[in-house]
Amino acid sequence: MNMNEVAGNLLIKVREQKPLVHNITNFVVMNYTANALLACGASPVMAHAKEEVEEMVQIANALVLNIGTLEPAWVQAMDLAAEKASRKGIPVVLDPVGAGATRYRTETAKGLLQKGYVSVVRGNSSEILALSDEKARTRGVDALHETEDAVGVAMEIARTYHTIVAVTGPVDLVTDGETILRIRNGHPLMGKVTGTGCTATAIIGAFCGVITDYLVATASALAYFGAVGEVAARTVSTPGSYMIALLDTLYSLSPEDLIRQVKIDT
Amino acid sequence: MNMNEVAGNLLIKVREQKPLVHNITNFVVMNYTANALLACGASPVMAHAKEEVEEMVQIANALVLNIGTLEPAWVQAMDLAAEKASRKGIPVVLDPVGAGATRYRTETAKGLLQKGYVSVVRGNSSEILALSDEKARTRGVDALHETEDAVGVAMEIARTYHTIVAVTGPVDLVTDGETILRIRNGHPLMGKVTGTGCTATAIIGAFCGVITDYLVATASALAYFGAVGEVAARTVSTPGSYMIALLDTLYSLSPEDLIRQVKIDT
Amino acid sequence: MNMNEVAGNLLIKVREQKPLVHNITNFVVMNYTANALLACGASPVMAHAKEEVEEMVQIANALVLNIGTLEPAWVQAMDLAAEKASRKGIPVVLDPVGAGATRYRTETAKGLLQKGYVSVVRGNSSEILALSDEKARTRGVDALHETEDAVGVAMEIARTYHTIVAVTGPVDLVTDGETILRIRNGHPLMGKVTGTGCTATAIIGAFCGVITDYLVATASALAYFGAVGEVAARTVSTPGSYMIALLDTLYSLSPEDLIRQVKIDT
Repeated sequence: MNMNEVAGNLLIKVREQKPLVHNITNFVVMNYTANALLACGASPVMAHAKEEVEEMVQIANALVLNIGTLEPAWVQAMDLAAEKASRKGIPVVLDPVGAGATRYRTETAKGLLQKGYVSVVRGNSSEILALSDEKARTRGVDALHETEDAVGVAMEIARTYHTIVAVTGPVDLVTDGETILRIRNGHPLMGKVTGTGCTATAIIGAFCGVITDYLVATASALAYFGAVGEVAARTVSTPGSYMIALLDTLYSLSPEDLIRQVKIDT
Repeated sequence: MNMNEVAGNLLIKVREQKPLVHNITNFVVMNYTANALLACGASPVMAHAKEEVEEMVQIANALVLNIGTLEPAWVQAMDLAAEKASRKGIPVVLDPVGAGATRYRTETAKGLLQKGYVSVVRGNSSEILALSDEKARTRGVDALHETEDAVGVAMEIARTYHTIVAVTGPVDLVTDGETILRIRNGHPLMGKVTGTGCTATAIIGAFCGVITDYLVATASALAYFGAVGEVAARTVSTPGSYMIALLDTLYSLSPEDLIRQVKIDT
Repeated sequence: MNMNEVAGNLLIKVREQKPLVHNITNFVVMNYTANALLACGASPVMAHAKEEVEEMVQIANALVLNIGTLEPAWVQAMDLAAEKASRKGIPVVLDPVGAGATRYRTETAKGLLQKGYVSVVRGNSSEILALSDEKARTRGVDALHETEDAVGVAMEIARTYHTIVAVTGPVDLVTDGETILRIRNGHPLMGKVTGTGCTATAIIGAFCGVITDYLVATASALAYFGAVGEVAARTVSTPGSYMIALLDTLYSLSPEDLIRQVKIDT
């Protein structure tokens, strides 16, 4: 079975199984993330209090951690939730938003990786470079490097922490430290809607919630969201309408259309 | 006067009086809730610090408490605000989001009821069942039970805590422990937009802010939002556009149209 | 060069320089603010932890403080960030949301002004009046006074704190304590979308991030957002669609169109 069919089948699985995705994420994207997960067919829940995160993980199929608006109590809750998720064996997907922009973000993201909690980490090239000891700069939450600049570091992180690393940009790359998959789906207008990177991470969570091959799940999720971005751009060209069209298309894109559209280089 | 005319008249009152609705609600829905209340004709305000909630209640016409993304400081603020609202005599409307999914949510919601603060509680069947001592399960924030499964428990809660209980689902039911009203408005696509339940609760707050008969206000608010959901679904069928169409229709639905559309069984 | 051309040129500068705007803002508007800044051409970042705000200010071109959903840790972070921004010499733009509604908001906003951190403060007439020692009332976050009622107080605040004061309403006024500019752009439907005032403040931040004449930058930003509101209202008349049309038009309005539309009385 080729990657196109794999991606199509995983979309069907998400819509059938409706994985419960527990998000500890940033304030900016909470609403959009929840709507995007619903539109995919998944079931979102947000909970961040140390009083309840472990119980919520107990009923979840995937845990998504996003450091976009961090504070100490949230870091503590992420640790508790990730530890529980690891023990339970559900995927932990990390979005190191703004790693490299401040030490607090860089150290928090690295800490989660070093504890061995993370199944998949997805960031732009600057964020991924910041997770290694190489010098990298992030301007706020924007990438200042090319995706391909991060290939070596991505593979090293994947091997060191036994995790999948996804570097997203004009071309996305996903690696387990051995294999590299490149995904050529997507549209530039996605960069004009806040939190599309965070949305990609949440969708990776949903896909990892229905299959244990996280390399394939991550690449499929990125191809799906990229294909959605392409279809949405056929009818609208301004960011407000595009933000809404993305949600509409996450919902309406059929597995058959997805299979036709996937562009993954293996 | 029948319930259809009552609902239409209450909508007119909300638009004329513009009740100030003070929300202590979850991060996911804050923006959508504020926009929905504005679209109805009400005036929303969000404030959650213990330093100011009592002063904000002092100028408000209704208080809405929503436990969707709880943490201890917020629970403390909810207590302060609810106590003040009770003394002042304005309605306190509770949304027990995810009660049954974690003990923290279940206990917080029960605590507010037990202190006698709550005028109206609105949840799905699982959430309402979780507020009794009966066994119930909630999957994240989704209902796992039928609305009618919760009739007995809803009536018991209403009598025990002298509150109105609304159980929403394909058919909504509202009870004061004696009378049961069933509302047959609504559309399945509402379940594909995050926070439509929370929006219903906020609109109940607005309607209770203009009349002291909370049973009638709650049923009317649910019929109004349900009718809005039906009208919005006539022109769009995907969740992003539908989310926007709900806001548009909350604003544009006339009292006359509402009167024609209300389906409340008394 | 007249104000129309100045405004057009500033819009070009924002789109070319993509100023990084660091927001410590309220939960209700975070997503919309980020999308509005992106649509303008600026680059938004949100960060509120005392562990990282100073580092984020270090890479930012403007700092926007908004007290819409305040709590003590956020006030502390605002102080740290504003002190750093002042020393670094980047603009600090304050939105005193709900000043006058509670003492906590009034005192926090006044405190930031008194410490001399604030380059520009933008509020409705009630909020600005509340910052003086004159008696004023704010109903939640709504104005209860006319813009022109606040002229004297606005000029006094501008002189006392060496800041630009913008009072927005049907007509906006901007003053440095000597000159008064009145901006006659805008549309009533903007009041039906939550956070349009906060959005105006964030756009002021973006414009102040590319020029040191904050009087001119503030007036230009308000004329731009007002013009966007007028254009968006040509095609839609309901608040959900209008909220989206505002984002679309922030992105698509050309500098030439802006120059034609600006209505600033000097």
